[in-house]
Amino acid sequence: MLSVVKIGGAIIDNATALQDFLEKFNQLPAPKVLIHGGGRGATALSKRLGIETIMIEGRRVTDAATLEVATMVYAGLTNKTIVGKLQALGSNAIGLCGADANIIKSHKRNPNPIDYGFVGDIDSVDAEKIMALASVGLVPVICAITHDGNGQLLNTNADSVAQGVATSLAALTPTRLTYCFEQPGVMRDIENPDSWIPRISPANYEELKAEGVVSGGMVPKLDNAFAALNSGVKEVCIKLADNLLSPVGTTIEL
Amino acid sequence: MLSVVKIGGAIIDNATALQDFLEKFNQLPAPKVLIHGGGRGATALSKRLGIETIMIEGRRVTDAATLEVATMVYAGLTNKTIVGKLQALGSNAIGLCGADANIIKSHKRNPNPIDYGFVGDIDSVDAEKIMALASVGLVPVICAITHDGNGQLLNTNADSVAQGVATSLAALTPTRLTYCFEQPGVMRDIENPDSWIPRISPANYEELKAEGVVSGGMVPKLDNAFAALNSGVKEVCIKLADNLLSPVGTTIEL
Repeated sequence: MLSVVKIGGAIIDNATALQDFLEKFNQLPAPKVLIHGGGRGATALSKRLGIETIMIEGRRVTDAATLEVATMVYAGLTNKTIVGKLQALGSNAIGLCGADANIIKSHKRNPNPIDYGFVGDIDSVDAEKIMALASVGLVPVICAITHDGNGQLLNTNADSVAQGVATSLAALTPTRLTYCFEQPGVMRDIENPDSWIPRISPANYEELKAEGVVSGGMVPKLDNAFAALNSGVKEVCIKLADNLLSPVGTTIEL
Repeated sequence: MLSVVKIGGAIIDNATALQDFLEKFNQLPAPKVLIHGGGRGATALSKRLGIETIMIEGRRVTDAATLEVATMVYAGLTNKTIVGKLQALGSNAIGLCGADANIIKSHKRNPNPIDYGFVGDIDSVDAEKIMALASVGLVPVICAITHDGNGQLLNTNADSVAQGVATSLAALTPTRLTYCFEQPGVMRDIENPDSWIPRISPANYEELKAEGVVSGGMVPKLDNAFAALNSGVKEVCIKLADNLLSPVGTTIEL
């Protein structure tokens, strides 16, 4: 089974957590693909450069200066740091953004009703090209910068990239999608580390939302997970990065 | 014949010149590889971030903060901007640093007698991997960041990367190396655009150096060119970026 693993910003921001995670990812059987988001690096660099961070309804607006920062941090520093570390562990990683080998095409989000700037929504993923790289022993490491095919890079939600890549690969080969983050899974009580929910199906998802157990940023993550399952992905898990190789975590199932 | 083309910083710094060059590079027959240096982007970003640029004997010292800047600009913004523009023209470009697919391994330069910091001297280039990418229709776009295989990225001279890549590829397939910059070739008189020297051989190279016609940064560039020819590269040219597809320029020959 091919594994698509997405790591969140909190792991990227912590050098020890990142190294621990990459050691586990290195042990995961191939074929495998790593998707990474941004972390605080882009926000920190924007601040140092005096670029104002504009948020609308809790989401960041990507103006031209912010897109440059995101490209530098995600496709440059973060991506190449991860690739260098995986190479040191023995994984033949290859770092990519969506423009590389034209693997992820997107379009700039409609500025109505809210203009988020240079933000891309995914149109297509070239799963055959990703498989071609994997078939020669490479481990694709994909950051959340995509392109529109007309020379415009676009900042893209990393969870959506993970879902898009996993869904496209699932049409070619059995695929599992794992979201790794800083919690043991979807939590009943964020204060209680033992309260992770082992399984979420469409039926109890509605209950969990109604109870308010699942809310905020977890809703789009779970919506993405169900969309992936409905499009042919075999398994979706949400788990602690450190548990990548263990069964502990929340399994999303139809 | 496979073409390895290196573009210098002055072209990268000028959006119109870069676009004009990329349109010509797009027309160059495959297989082809593009190598790019830095331009003023890294120096400008360092300045904005208040990172001091330290020069020793006219060469930049790469401390940890400067390496981060170089990785962000070369492997991030510059590389992905070029890849996005080539995709828009119809070339299926894939952007790489030396850590990606382990294509260029280097070692940190000996700190004695001068400690240049995180600067790499090339040990090996995986020409077979570069050819494998080219053979599936991809156009590698390689920036001048390499790695030591132990997780350390290293800033590397782009002319040396071009020479190393061309030399390694020449062992597999007939290869030409073209250095594109902002002059029509090696100039007798920098004030006279018609004074480019059509051919330089080892014999007239010694004369040109003795006369002082060739001096400064052109000496290591020509030394690199002769090293490439002596290692099996078929042709080396130094020319105006805009003349990529024309015969105008300086041909270096044995």
